[in-house]
Amino acid sequence: MYCVLALLLAFAVSSTSTSATGSYAEDRALIEDLQARYMFALDFGDVDAYLSTFTEDGVLDVGDGEIKGHDAIKKAISGMPDRRAAQASGDATKLRPPTGRHNISNIVIKVDGNKALGRAYWFHYGNNNPQRSATFDSYGHYEDEMVKVKGKWLFSKRRIYNENRDKWAAKGVNPAW
Amino acid sequence: MYCVLALLLAFAVSSTSTSATGSYAEDRALIEDLQARYMFALDFGDVDAYLSTFTEDGVLDVGDGEIKGHDAIKKAISGMPDRRAAQASGDATKLRPPTGRHNISNIVIKVDGNKALGRAYWFHYGNNNPQRSATFDSYGHYEDEMVKVKGKWLFSKRRIYNENRDKWAAKGVNPAW
Amino acid sequence: MYCVLALLLAFAVSSTSTSATGSYAEDRALIEDLQARYMFALDFGDVDAYLSTFTEDGVLDVGDGEIKGHDAIKKAISGMPDRRAAQASGDATKLRPPTGRHNISNIVIKVDGNKALGRAYWFHYGNNNPQRSATFDSYGHYEDEMVKVKGKWLFSKRRIYNENRDKWAAKGVNPAW
Repeated sequence: MYCVLALLLAFAVSSTSTSATGSYAEDRALIEDLQARYMFALDFGDVDAYLSTFTEDGVLDVGDGEIKGHDAIKKAISGMPDRRAAQASGDATKLRPPTGRHNISNIVIKVDGNKALGRAYWFHYGNNNPQRSATFDSYGHYEDEMVKVKGKWLFSKRRIYNENRDKWAAKGVNPAW
Repeated sequence: MYCVLALLLAFAVSSTSTSATGSYAEDRALIEDLQARYMFALDFGDVDAYLSTFTEDGVLDVGDGEIKGHDAIKKAISGMPDRRAAQASGDATKLRPPTGRHNISNIVIKVDGNKALGRAYWFHYGNNNPQRSATFDSYGHYEDEMVKVKGKWLFSKRRIYNENRDKWAAKGVNPAW
Repeated sequence: MYCVLALLLAFAVSSTSTSATGSYAEDRALIEDLQARYMFALDFGDVDAYLSTFTEDGVLDVGDGEIKGHDAIKKAISGMPDRRAAQASGDATKLRPPTGRHNISNIVIKVDGNKALGRAYWFHYGNNNPQRSATFDSYGHYEDEMVKVKGKWLFSKRRIYNENRDKWAAKGVNPAW
């Protein structure tokens, strides 16, 4: 018992953030994995995997207001795979279906016990053109709130900013403290 | 001894994955470093550093079948630096040699003792044009198997998917569980 | 006391690098956070946050020689936000101000006690055009030296290579060991 306490203290010293489980690195590693799985789920149209990255009452906000809870989020995003299929079937090129990929980078994370705040950039590229040529097309940033539930980090809120449109763009102040 | 066991247990609790060395964060950190060193080696034509990221009997598969072992991989990739030099020498612009850069993002990692599975995106940009202007040109994803040998994580298998060609593109199902 | 020593040894075994605070993962996590905060500060014109990523006598070198210390660095970069405002005000499109974003990837880190060496790629995209369309425009790499001061990792030196210009481009040899 003394031993585990010593361990927790040893880690806390090296970070400005503290964690109930003892290590900024451990929390950050799990959150990075969450962030990456979110992207795969989104781009490959895996609705269940996408929802599983949010708490049951989690909030998604793409800039048009809060979408709260798995059911509402599912409804909001369920067009994703269909849209892709429609795109493909309506495509006269007879090439493979187009693909698109969201990427996360510059991840800043503050951990406070079982809660965490995240800031990160995202950017997107795809090949939805007749040549299926790789094209960079959009970017923005995330402002996230996360919670640790039964040892797993989940999004309690993801707010997305998108520089492709006036109303969705960042407001200019550094969001990463 | 009790102490180390307590430590291992303390970490295991916070992760769905377990590790023989005690920490998902520690394994993930070492694997991220491996993934990054692979990229530098590839883009700077450092064949030895590239090979050193694979086990002796490691497999590379770019979509045309398995290339197994250091000798075979070396043969398969040894054209890299030469091709670059040839490109440069045949370049009438008299500019510096063109460069290209592979990047990894969205890294998902599952660790099970001394083995790990990885999924990640890759994308590439370069300036192989008369203006040496930075151009985004290709992307895909990795499906990796890694093993820990004497404290070092290495690729035992790297399977590359590339969205620039029909036969090398992903098959549509979310590869990241 | 024995307990903490056992912990430090347990971690050291799994990494080629050692750390005074016991964990490669912990140091790497804090350094990744530093690297990400640097980017937010740079792109959002937050001079104080930018300077706070360097030691007091830290060195920035973008390829034209060393800029040493907070005052000199502040002078060198203080044009950033102003330039952005000027750009925006001189912009006849009446669109929102243009934005640009630097990203870091492929981070390789070697830790030795309270010192660390870093190698990483950077790339930049933005929308400084009349359509505010997302455009990929430049890339290069970083060669960093970092030190841990009172539990916080800081840049003691950041050397930037930029592939957009002959004199700032990498010299061809793999910088990541």
